[in-house]
Amino acid sequence: MSHIESIQNWLVENHYQIGYISNFKNIQYLTGFESDPIERVLALFIFPNQDPFIFAPALEVEAVKDTGWKFPVYGYLDHQDPFEIIKNQILKRVNNPKSWAIEKENLVVSRFEVIAEKFPTANFNGNLTPVIQKMQLIKTPQEIEKLELAGKWADFAFETGFKALSSSKTEQDIVAEIEYALKKKGIMHTSFDTIIQSGTNAAEPHGVPKKDFIKPNELVLFDLGVIFDGYISDASRTVAFGNNLSQKSKDIYAVCLEAQLTAQSAVKPGITAAELDKIARDIISKAGYGEYFIHRLGHGMGQSEHEFPSIMEGNNMELQPGMCFSIEPGIYIPGVAGVRIEDCVHVTDSGAVPFTHTSKELKYLSID
Amino acid sequence: MSHIESIQNWLVENHYQIGYISNFKNIQYLTGFESDPIERVLALFIFPNQDPFIFAPALEVEAVKDTGWKFPVYGYLDHQDPFEIIKNQILKRVNNPKSWAIEKENLVVSRFEVIAEKFPTANFNGNLTPVIQKMQLIKTPQEIEKLELAGKWADFAFETGFKALSSSKTEQDIVAEIEYALKKKGIMHTSFDTIIQSGTNAAEPHGVPKKDFIKPNELVLFDLGVIFDGYISDASRTVAFGNNLSQKSKDIYAVCLEAQLTAQSAVKPGITAAELDKIARDIISKAGYGEYFIHRLGHGMGQSEHEFPSIMEGNNMELQPGMCFSIEPGIYIPGVAGVRIEDCVHVTDSGAVPFTHTSKELKYLSID
Repeated sequence: MSHIESIQNWLVENHYQIGYISNFKNIQYLTGFESDPIERVLALFIFPNQDPFIFAPALEVEAVKDTGWKFPVYGYLDHQDPFEIIKNQILKRVNNPKSWAIEKENLVVSRFEVIAEKFPTANFNGNLTPVIQKMQLIKTPQEIEKLELAGKWADFAFETGFKALSSSKTEQDIVAEIEYALKKKGIMHTSFDTIIQSGTNAAEPHGVPKKDFIKPNELVLFDLGVIFDGYISDASRTVAFGNNLSQKSKDIYAVCLEAQLTAQSAVKPGITAAELDKIARDIISKAGYGEYFIHRLGHGMGQSEHEFPSIMEGNNMELQPGMCFSIEPGIYIPGVAGVRIEDCVHVTDSGAVPFTHTSKELKYLSID
Repeated sequence: MSHIESIQNWLVENHYQIGYISNFKNIQYLTGFESDPIERVLALFIFPNQDPFIFAPALEVEAVKDTGWKFPVYGYLDHQDPFEIIKNQILKRVNNPKSWAIEKENLVVSRFEVIAEKFPTANFNGNLTPVIQKMQLIKTPQEIEKLELAGKWADFAFETGFKALSSSKTEQDIVAEIEYALKKKGIMHTSFDTIIQSGTNAAEPHGVPKKDFIKPNELVLFDLGVIFDGYISDASRTVAFGNNLSQKSKDIYAVCLEAQLTAQSAVKPGITAAELDKIARDIISKAGYGEYFIHRLGHGMGQSEHEFPSIMEGNNMELQPGMCFSIEPGIYIPGVAGVRIEDCVHVTDSGAVPFTHTSKELKYLSID
C-alpha cells in the first residue's frame, strides 16, 4: 500500500472528505516531490475515493511531473489567488465538502483563515499531523536502505575528521575539511551543522565549533550526519587526541560507552522507549555522573532528526521492528570534558542494527 | 526606539492587550536571542505598558540571559505544559486578556487551538506578521553595516570561486572549494545553497550544481551568499571560462548587464518596485529576450532573502531609504546558456549602494 493509500484509508475510516497536506516535507514523503516553497503555496489534497492532486507554484509544475507523479498537478502564478484555484478544483471533486483533515502542527493561522473563509460551512476537526508521524514511525525496507547509505557517509566523515585532527587546526577547520571531503564526493548537504568540540568545549552540548585549536591530550567530540536521497544520518564519536588523557576523561568515556552499548544491546520489540532510556541512565547515574547526562537518550529519525519515537522518560511507546532512532548517552562536566557516543539504529525482530559502523572503542589519535 | 518599543506602540494604537511572537527569527530580530526551538516552544510576549517576557525551553534560559536580555525569561521542562506556564505568567500581568495580536503567518493551528482554549473569551484578530515585516522593511544603520560585512564575504567567495574554475573540476567541486575557504575564515553558514552552473546547466534557474565538469568556452553562473552576524549576503556573477565564447553568450551577457546596471542606477526614493522591475524587463524584452527572463527582478533581504520589498510587476510600493533588496535580471535560454547578474543594494537619499563590489564587466578567465 502506498503512503497516499494509507492516508486515503484513514480518511475513509474517520469520515473525512478531504485531507490537506501543507508540510512540504510530508508532501515529499507522500509523493516523492521535493521542494521548499518558502512563502508560496505548495499543497497536496487527498480524497477518500478519488485521485489526489498537487497544487504548486507554476514554476514547479514541470518538476512535479518529472518525478513520475501520475495524478493531476495544478499551478498558479504569483498574481493569482492560489486558494481560489484550489477551491475550484476541490468543488469539482466534492460537492459541499464539510469535513476536513489538516496538518494542525504545520498549517499557519493565516492560511487556515483563508480556507475557512472559502468553505464557511466546513469543519476542520481532523488532524493529519499525528497520522503521518505514526506512518513515518515504521520505516519500509527501501527507507532503511537509504538510511544505511546515509550512515556510510557519516562513517566516511568520521574517518576524514579523525585524519584531519591536528593541534595546528581549529574546531572550525575540522568542520571545513569534513564538509569539503563530503562535497567532493557529491554529498552536498549535512543533516545539521557539523559539531566538533575539543576539551572543555565539549562540555556544552548545545555549543558550536569555535576558532579554538584542537587541544592535545583531550577528548574531541564529533557529532555529524548527511542527507542522502532525502534520508539522514546522525552519529557521534568522541576520540582522544594524544595518549595522555586524564583519568577523569578515560572514566567518563568508559561509563558513556557502557551506557551506549548496553542500551543498544537491549533494544528489542516490546521494550518501551522509557525503559531503554532508563537502562543507559542507570549506568551513568550509578557511576556518579547522572547529573551530567542532561538530555534524553535519543530521538527518532528518518527524513529528519525530529521524528518519533523519542527515547525518554515518560514515553511508554513499545519499540517495534522498523522504528529508527538514536542512542546517544552523553556526559558533560563543565570545565572538564564532554563525551557523547551515538549510533542511530533500526529495530529488527531480534534487536537493533546500527546505520553507522565506526568503532566505538576509545580511539587514541597521535598528536601531529 | 527599540524594535520592542515599536511593537508596544503598535499594540497601544490598535488596542491590543497582548502581542505573541512565535517566529523564532522574529524573536531574534526583536530581542537578539537566536535559537531554533524545532518542536519545542519559544515565545516572546509583549504588552502595551508592561515589560515583555521570553518563554523558552529550560535548556535555553541561560543563553537568553547571556544575550543581555534585561526582562524576565521563564523556562519549561519537556514534561511540563508550556502553555499553562505561559497562561499563568500572562494572568499575572493582564486580568482577563481579551484582545490578542499573533503572528498569523507563523503560528500553527495546533498551538493556536491550545491558546484559544486556555483563553476562551479572547479574540485573536490582531496580526503581527505584517507589522514586523513593515518594521524590517527599513534597515537601521547597524543593520546596513552587518549587510555590508556579509557582502564582503560574498566578494571573497566570488574571488575564491573564480580562481578555482578548472576544466578538471565539477560544479560541485567549485561549491566545495568556496565553502571550504569560507569555513577556514570562520564563516560557517551560507545564506542558501551555493549555486555554480556551467554552460547549458545555467539555463535552469532552479537547478542545482551537478557532477558535470566546468565546460570550456562557456558561461559559468555563480549565485551565493553568507550569513554574517545574523544578516545575509546574496549576489550573482556570470563569467566566461575561456576566451572563445559564442556570440550568443556575449549578447545575452551584454543585455543582462545593461538591464542590471540601468535598474541599479534608477533606484531612488519614490520610484516604485514595479517601475524598477519594468526598467530592467524593458531592456531585455527590447533585445528580444523577454521570454527568457522568467522571474521577478528582485526580492527584499536582510536576515533572510525572503523579506520585502518584492521588486516585481504589480508591486506599487515606493522605495525608501533603508530598504534593501536584490537587483538580479537573468536570461535563461534552454539548451544554450544562462546569465544572471545580481547585487543586493540599500536605498539611500539619492540612489542605491550595493553590498557587493565584484566587477560586473564580463570577466574572461583562462582555461587551466
